Amino acid sequence: MPDFPSFVEFREEGPREGFQIEKTVFPLHQRAELIDALSLTGLKRIQVASFVSARAVPQMADAPELFAAIKRVPGVAYTGLWLNEKGFERARSTPGVDLEPMLLFYASDAFSIRNNNRSAMEMREDQRRWLEIYLDHGLKPDSAYVMAAFGCNLEGEIPLERVMDDFRFVIDLCAEKGVELPSLILADTMGWANPESMKQRITALRALAPGARIGLHLHDTRGLGIANVYAALELGVDLFDSSVAGLGGCPFAGHGNHMAAGNVCTEDSAFLCHELGIETGIDIDKMIEAARLAEDIIGRSLMGRLMHSGSLSAYR
Amino acid sequence: MPDFPSFVEFREEGPREGFQIEKTVFPLHQRAELIDALSLTGLKRIQVASFVSARAVPQMADAPELFAAIKRVPGVAYTGLWLNEKGFERARSTPGVDLEPMLLFYASDAFSIRNNNRSAMEMREDQRRWLEIYLDHGLKPDSAYVMAAFGCNLEGEIPLERVMDDFRFVIDLCAEKGVELPSLILADTMGWANPESMKQRITALRALAPGARIGLHLHDTRGLGIANVYAALELGVDLFDSSVAGLGGCPFAGHGNHMAAGNVCTEDSAFLCHELGIETGIDIDKMIEAARLAEDIIGRSLMGRLMHSGSLSAYR
Repeated sequence: MPDFPSFVEFREEGPREGFQIEKTVFPLHQRAELIDALSLTGLKRIQVASFVSARAVPQMADAPELFAAIKRVPGVAYTGLWLNEKGFERARSTPGVDLEPMLLFYASDAFSIRNNNRSAMEMREDQRRWLEIYLDHGLKPDSAYVMAAFGCNLEGEIPLERVMDDFRFVIDLCAEKGVELPSLILADTMGWANPESMKQRITALRALAPGARIGLHLHDTRGLGIANVYAALELGVDLFDSSVAGLGGCPFAGHGNHMAAGNVCTEDSAFLCHELGIETGIDIDKMIEAARLAEDIIGRSLMGRLMHSGSLSAYR
Repeated sequence: MPDFPSFVEFREEGPREGFQIEKTVFPLHQRAELIDALSLTGLKRIQVASFVSARAVPQMADAPELFAAIKRVPGVAYTGLWLNEKGFERARSTPGVDLEPMLLFYASDAFSIRNNNRSAMEMREDQRRWLEIYLDHGLKPDSAYVMAAFGCNLEGEIPLERVMDDFRFVIDLCAEKGVELPSLILADTMGWANPESMKQRITALRALAPGARIGLHLHDTRGLGIANVYAALELGVDLFDSSVAGLGGCPFAGHGNHMAAGNVCTEDSAFLCHELGIETGIDIDKMIEAARLAEDIIGRSLMGRLMHSGSLSAYR
């Protein structure tokens, strides 16, 4: 028998992942409308926007205004992403941002250099400073991500040991500072995971940090996303980043380009859980409504399946 | 450790499933071109067309001409579907059709009545006659399908016992006629399966027919298709119907309609197998080419993922 969790938490990343990747800057009221729809689904954490350079990412320039526009629902956390101290300061000074302090590691050196102009080792050392910054502000790290944990388009296969090395660093760092271990998140940034590599990494991470909460950040680049969620559920994983409608990529824009693809789809993943008898707190039909709203806003077909077929509730 | 098979066979249904459901009748040369592309992928069986009423399904009216137009590759079987004796006679009299005699059962009475104007029990008895027809022509049944084996939009949940009853009938009938048992195919006609119901049915069918080859006919209606394939692989299943590019449905045509969805996508499923170390004989990059050709012909985005992202071979 699989070791399914009884309850799975989905952290919604669609608004940030989805709108960030689009060339269009969608009107603020539309983005707020989607977040408001998501607030009514039972989701408990919604990533609203990122606090990054308005020049680099003009889609996120109005993050503070967006936070001001949304209709907050009690019990839902509205989070934002930052990648440097300036972003962190903006997030801190924006009313209504629920701070979600994150430590960020790279299992791929080439990817780290391309994204940050710093090596993976330098990025790792930076996290020591980030932890201190968080602690100075009375915050504890919420999660520690290892990016490209299953493979990398730049480096190819990523050895398990490199991923575990990063997590080992987190464990030691937190022990050194006397800080409770954050959730340990395996991020399949480029869609390399398959159900067996999933199980291998989860099993290794469990052995390394038996008490830790393990989470997954998956991109459904090559169609294995939901199978990977299932494999993780079989091992009791109860935390997933996900995107309404599979927002976050544009796989239909062209052939031959290796397009980014969205996070694993929230409503399809939650549907899987419910069919397996696992609770999520999510109202699937309301998630489908939110997914259809996302499709209407984006203006093209999105990757989610359930939003196009409907759930099974009408037939039972 | 999962009990993966070492080799998995995919039977391609895209040309029949895909073009049959479209409102447009695509030019014969385009359909032949797709089949010719599929012939070069390593697939060993391709369902070319169905021999059904030209009035009911005008898209399939030129099935004989299509068989004449394709460039046959040695070692590849080119099959056709029939649903009544007239269709069987047409298939038999069409040069180049590799006959694939099938027995067809319905686990849902309501669905059987809607599809055939006959009850599931009447359909079951009809299969006795079909077996005799096949034997009279020196043919043996290749596969026995139980439709709606995981659930039905008309009847709701389908008890396991009804599915097993149909397979029990096949076993008894073949024993009575001294015929080798065909492959036993669980068909998730309307996308109700999940990985656990998959495992439950496969396990029950194995217990019922320990020596039989078990296959799956899956539709990826609600996003669980590849997870269902993975669950079946974990139990050693080595036979799947599938469609290039996920052809066979039109999930993007509208909201709120409960659209048919295509078979599970051939190249995404084969990619899963390869990532798990299971051979399929399929050249993934050629399958992706065929999928892109299918998309070009159909003229809208199709459901396959790998065709939009590319495989991992370029990165390793």
